[in-house]
Amino acid sequence: MENCIFCQIIKKELPASIIFEDEQVLAFLEINPLAEGHTLVVPKEHFENIFDIEEDLLKKIIFVSKKISEKMKEALGTEGVNLVQRSGIVAEQGVFHFHLHIIPRKKNDNINLENWWRQKTKEISPEKLEEIASKLAI
Amino acid sequence: MENCIFCQIIKKELPASIIFEDEQVLAFLEINPLAEGHTLVVPKEHFENIFDIEEDLLKKIIFVSKKISEKMKEALGTEGVNLVQRSGIVAEQGVFHFHLHIIPRKKNDNINLENWWRQKTKEISPEKLEEIASKLAI
Repeated sequence: MENCIFCQIIKKELPASIIFEDEQVLAFLEINPLAEGHTLVVPKEHFENIFDIEEDLLKKIIFVSKKISEKMKEALGTEGVNLVQRSGIVAEQGVFHFHLHIIPRKKNDNINLENWWRQKTKEISPEKLEEIASKLAI
Repeated sequence: MENCIFCQIIKKELPASIIFEDEQVLAFLEINPLAEGHTLVVPKEHFENIFDIEEDLLKKIIFVSKKISEKMKEALGTEGVNLVQRSGIVAEQGVFHFHLHIIPRKKNDNINLENWWRQKTKEISPEKLEEIASKLAI
């Protein structure tokens, strides 16, 4: 897609530090990393988000992400990872080409996702939970 | 696994508001939600994290997560979603049974993942990025 920076990276019109590439998927380093090794895994075909991406491609992306997570342990001494995916402008998606973040974590890395998270959680009753669950049943 | 609260939920020894269940996967509502409909998707078999989970099960979990994301749009008026996975104590994993969070998002929901995120990113040189990418190549 024109004007999509990830499509430009895929077409090699923009530079990127590439970790993995095959016919369907590209993985490259985030240029504004939360930690050394912060990686983005994207489909080569342009899909905007989790809602429109093809199912087999999504499965391939999570598989590649697991492989990269394992490699982070081996090559960078990573002790854990966070995977983060943002779909939609309200979900704070920045580039509108599906991408999964892999953030390698280490002790005392000062990222503190949990601290942020816990301040944001809400009280909710069991009845309300049941009501929502019945709406969401797939 | 004994003393694992998600295993207890799977065995129906603890209550949960269930969205989806089959032989391999269970999806239920987070009891400390970031937003109404905040869902956890877990494998029924006990795997601790992204490093040890079976590949086919991981693919199934991402597939179910996509389906639930779509249902959130239809049933809750969700405009976007965040997927978050935490593997390892350093990655702020709380329950040591693999789980993928689906956080439904709406305009002005005050979650602000991006604001938190951007304050944490680091400057990094293109040379350093290339060095890390060559270590991580899979």
